[in-house]
Amino acid sequence: MKNAFNRIALIGKYGDPGVGGTVDKLIAILENRGVEVILEEHTAKAIQKSGYIIESLEAISSDCDLAITVGGDGTLLNAARSMINSNVPLLGINLGRLGFLVDVSPDELDMRLEEILNGKYEEEHRILLSTRIEHHNGGSDSISDAFNDVVVHKWEVARMIETETYINGRFLNSMRSDGLIVSTPTGSTAYALSGGGPILEPDMNAIILVPICPHTMSYRPIVIDGDSEIEIIVKEGPLSHAQVTCDGQINLGVVSGDKIHIQKHDRHVRLIHPCKHNHYEILRAKLHWGEQF
Amino acid sequence: MKNAFNRIALIGKYGDPGVGGTVDKLIAILENRGVEVILEEHTAKAIQKSGYIIESLEAISSDCDLAITVGGDGTLLNAARSMINSNVPLLGINLGRLGFLVDVSPDELDMRLEEILNGKYEEEHRILLSTRIEHHNGGSDSISDAFNDVVVHKWEVARMIETETYINGRFLNSMRSDGLIVSTPTGSTAYALSGGGPILEPDMNAIILVPICPHTMSYRPIVIDGDSEIEIIVKEGPLSHAQVTCDGQINLGVVSGDKIHIQKHDRHVRLIHPCKHNHYEILRAKLHWGEQF
Amino acid sequence: MKNAFNRIALIGKYGDPGVGGTVDKLIAILENRGVEVILEEHTAKAIQKSGYIIESLEAISSDCDLAITVGGDGTLLNAARSMINSNVPLLGINLGRLGFLVDVSPDELDMRLEEILNGKYEEEHRILLSTRIEHHNGGSDSISDAFNDVVVHKWEVARMIETETYINGRFLNSMRSDGLIVSTPTGSTAYALSGGGPILEPDMNAIILVPICPHTMSYRPIVIDGDSEIEIIVKEGPLSHAQVTCDGQINLGVVSGDKIHIQKHDRHVRLIHPCKHNHYEILRAKLHWGEQF
Amino acid sequence: MKNAFNRIALIGKYGDPGVGGTVDKLIAILENRGVEVILEEHTAKAIQKSGYIIESLEAISSDCDLAITVGGDGTLLNAARSMINSNVPLLGINLGRLGFLVDVSPDELDMRLEEILNGKYEEEHRILLSTRIEHHNGGSDSISDAFNDVVVHKWEVARMIETETYINGRFLNSMRSDGLIVSTPTGSTAYALSGGGPILEPDMNAIILVPICPHTMSYRPIVIDGDSEIEIIVKEGPLSHAQVTCDGQINLGVVSGDKIHIQKHDRHVRLIHPCKHNHYEILRAKLHWGEQF
Repeated sequence: MKNAFNRIALIGKYGDPGVGGTVDKLIAILENRGVEVILEEHTAKAIQKSGYIIESLEAISSDCDLAITVGGDGTLLNAARSMINSNVPLLGINLGRLGFLVDVSPDELDMRLEEILNGKYEEEHRILLSTRIEHHNGGSDSISDAFNDVVVHKWEVARMIETETYINGRFLNSMRSDGLIVSTPTGSTAYALSGGGPILEPDMNAIILVPICPHTMSYRPIVIDGDSEIEIIVKEGPLSHAQVTCDGQINLGVVSGDKIHIQKHDRHVRLIHPCKHNHYEILRAKLHWGEQF
Repeated sequence: MKNAFNRIALIGKYGDPGVGGTVDKLIAILENRGVEVILEEHTAKAIQKSGYIIESLEAISSDCDLAITVGGDGTLLNAARSMINSNVPLLGINLGRLGFLVDVSPDELDMRLEEILNGKYEEEHRILLSTRIEHHNGGSDSISDAFNDVVVHKWEVARMIETETYINGRFLNSMRSDGLIVSTPTGSTAYALSGGGPILEPDMNAIILVPICPHTMSYRPIVIDGDSEIEIIVKEGPLSHAQVTCDGQINLGVVSGDKIHIQKHDRHVRLIHPCKHNHYEILRAKLHWGEQF
Repeated sequence: MKNAFNRIALIGKYGDPGVGGTVDKLIAILENRGVEVILEEHTAKAIQKSGYIIESLEAISSDCDLAITVGGDGTLLNAARSMINSNVPLLGINLGRLGFLVDVSPDELDMRLEEILNGKYEEEHRILLSTRIEHHNGGSDSISDAFNDVVVHKWEVARMIETETYINGRFLNSMRSDGLIVSTPTGSTAYALSGGGPILEPDMNAIILVPICPHTMSYRPIVIDGDSEIEIIVKEGPLSHAQVTCDGQINLGVVSGDKIHIQKHDRHVRLIHPCKHNHYEILRAKLHWGEQF
Repeated sequence: MKNAFNRIALIGKYGDPGVGGTVDKLIAILENRGVEVILEEHTAKAIQKSGYIIESLEAISSDCDLAITVGGDGTLLNAARSMINSNVPLLGINLGRLGFLVDVSPDELDMRLEEILNGKYEEEHRILLSTRIEHHNGGSDSISDAFNDVVVHKWEVARMIETETYINGRFLNSMRSDGLIVSTPTGSTAYALSGGGPILEPDMNAIILVPICPHTMSYRPIVIDGDSEIEIIVKEGPLSHAQVTCDGQINLGVVSGDKIHIQKHDRHVRLIHPCKHNHYEILRAKLHWGEQF
């Protein structure tokens, strides 16, 4: 039987030897189907056998037609950012604890992989944000991507920052706050939710702006079109130090007067789900919607 | 000079004689430009002169190429619902107090109308919700439209209701609460905002679900695609009495077991704005975003 | 051995035959200790044996030195309101599902009751609210008590109400909203929590005001001293119909111009807890504080 | 006529020469009444005349029977912390912009001061929090006071912290969040309000715990008795770096395993208000309660 994917990369949770068992099992299933397996370099150390093609996360994306991550949502987030330019679809296997993104559990691995290799799967497209910092002194721009969120946050704990936000060149508002979360629909169930944001269907073409502890009570989360260009300026003055974080991992320095440009990445993330996939089921389970006080 | 609109209907705030001055002024400007004026029947009573074509709100829509409302957001909401099937665009004049929808003030009436008649205007499209109640006993369906929101609300003050919500046939959740607001982006700055919902850009193709005082703490406003079909079922049991309200005006009876179907109307509302229109400016003014505590 | 309580009334959840088993078990334990048992009249129907003293809920309070309720928080709320003037302490047995107030589970009944009868227990005092409606036409006042909350709520679903609130005769604010929850600390984990209120330690001498869907974004829950006199006036006008509900059960009619006076009851509710009682443990369990998304 | 206060210290906003005019005017009024004036050392530089007693903020408190601050709420907060051990009452003059604490405006200076010197004033008592860090390695404790709030905050922007909270030695909860605000009633209209906390009457004997962006949706602000001892432990692990800030000004270092003890200061802050003082009026003005959207 022909396989839907012929060259599959396996990417385990960074630094977690516990992924070994699931990766071993994955290799066995894939080899049995005649699929060529590529191992991400750190993942290779977690498994028992040797003799596989080993590549760095950066190199791997140009060399496979599916990437399978083994770990939590963070592992898939990282892989998605790394592989965005190569258009490789991603499938997420969790390690027993359901994630918003990693929806295949180890105990259903055989059945789900068979289905997917047989071409029975759903492909979902999600937006990713691209951030560019235009430095006020004309230095070269800093660029980074985010699958969940870009957070502009005060630097010093005891000081608010003052920001001005523009949407497609039009002034939205000026705000004093602890910071501002710019989130994708995917990120709406991550940090933006802690900040009081709404939940968005994950495949929507929309961006959410969530203020963190705003000094004015009438600020609310704002949902804008996914094709908008967002510009955030950290205002000059005593409240000026800030930093920009992408997916809680990549930090870009920013000083007063720098402009933070955020917009949708040209390419979307391609997520592969088993056919039985139901995002509402994940929401109900993760947010404990059945339970009452 | 040719006019962008040739037959314009004027619709004043219902039962408010205070609209007379502005309507008189509007008539003078329009007649001066050679525009044919039609007066909504109740509006005709508020003005000084006679001799105009007078029609009911229902009839008027098939007979004009622009409708101008004079009053608050509520006046435009009503007119928009009445005229939805005839595709007539709407322009809103306020009575001195800025509205989210009625953005032309009486003191700038001349200049803005000249511009608009000269073809210098923006047309914005907004979604409207259509609600159909499928009665459990097979009785004929009740149907109504809403420009802001459809609210499913408990009937008795001291009792919660229990609802099940389905999106495109898929179960979203079961909830005990005081009710559920299903809002358009236009409605995101109306009742949904009081209920804790996010603000949406008004021309987005999206629908917001905002729970009212939910009994479980992890419910949050949810934003879904504007083309979704929503089905809300009031569950059987002691908490079963509910009612459905469209734009806070039209009440549809609902008993336990009835299904409330809500989806986007086939036609969108066409709003005419002066070129200088800036929705963010209205947000800043109405929500007092400049002010700090 | 001497018993800490010698005449104990048993009050089961109204209309629930399922309380019979627990009540039977309670009777056996109490009779074994030589305690005199009085049965609330509806509760008497749920048990197997006969030959007990049977009294109405109203009469029972002057005739016992402890009342034990069997059911949920609602059962204890009702009993507490009925018995407030007789100063009888209350102990709550749940039916397997932990409540905020009913903290003894059926499976630990023997041990906990032995302890309590041996005098090993904690007594906690909680405030109760007394509401008096001063009718604008001079009619006789309506009076009721609430252990959780007094809710002033709009009458018609689609209309807000406008209220003015005074604290100790001083004007606090005017508000347009769906209503206003006036809650005891006990009620802070009930309806007030759904409305967005804070959690108060249950034995505090404080009252919470929680607005329901306020039309102005800067209203927040307000916590005031428990000895304050609150006066709420439903304003005249088109938004004027309202109703007042105590503990979600007792409805007092109110029309525009009526004054709602709310203040702490002269007497407090006396709750008996086993020594191992830990309110924080109940909070953690009921609010699912361990769980993360 | 005898004066209610005979030796009054004047404390201007630090580093603001703009206080000079108001301080000059104050001196004239006070000298005219025969009151002895002491100038805080930095304040002395902002005025025109010389020849006054000049003392440091630390020394001044043991030498006067009233301290008048000129500036914003921050100026009074600082003075209150400095003077807490000497029991000197404080009066706050604003510089034209109403504060929650500084309620006398420059244009009513003459009349209000006359009244106060004549003994016509109200004295209000407010609690202040005392924080002690018990270092895990046994090093000497760090101690600081706060009039508004003590904030335990994550150190690194992109990482949550995990904290355990105990009230009077009893475990309340474990939480992953951006931090935790421990606020006085005075602080309930400061940072705690940005974090979603309730408003407390300022003279209540209560403490508020407000989680900042908690990872679990069921955390809510909690109000506890003002005499409670709070202990917050920053948990060991990868999320362990935190810092403690008092009134947004004083930073205490904290590492994993350190215990943060917070409780009410032995002494209360004594605030002097003109008789016309009305805290609700300040709330309405500062929070824009009249305005609707």
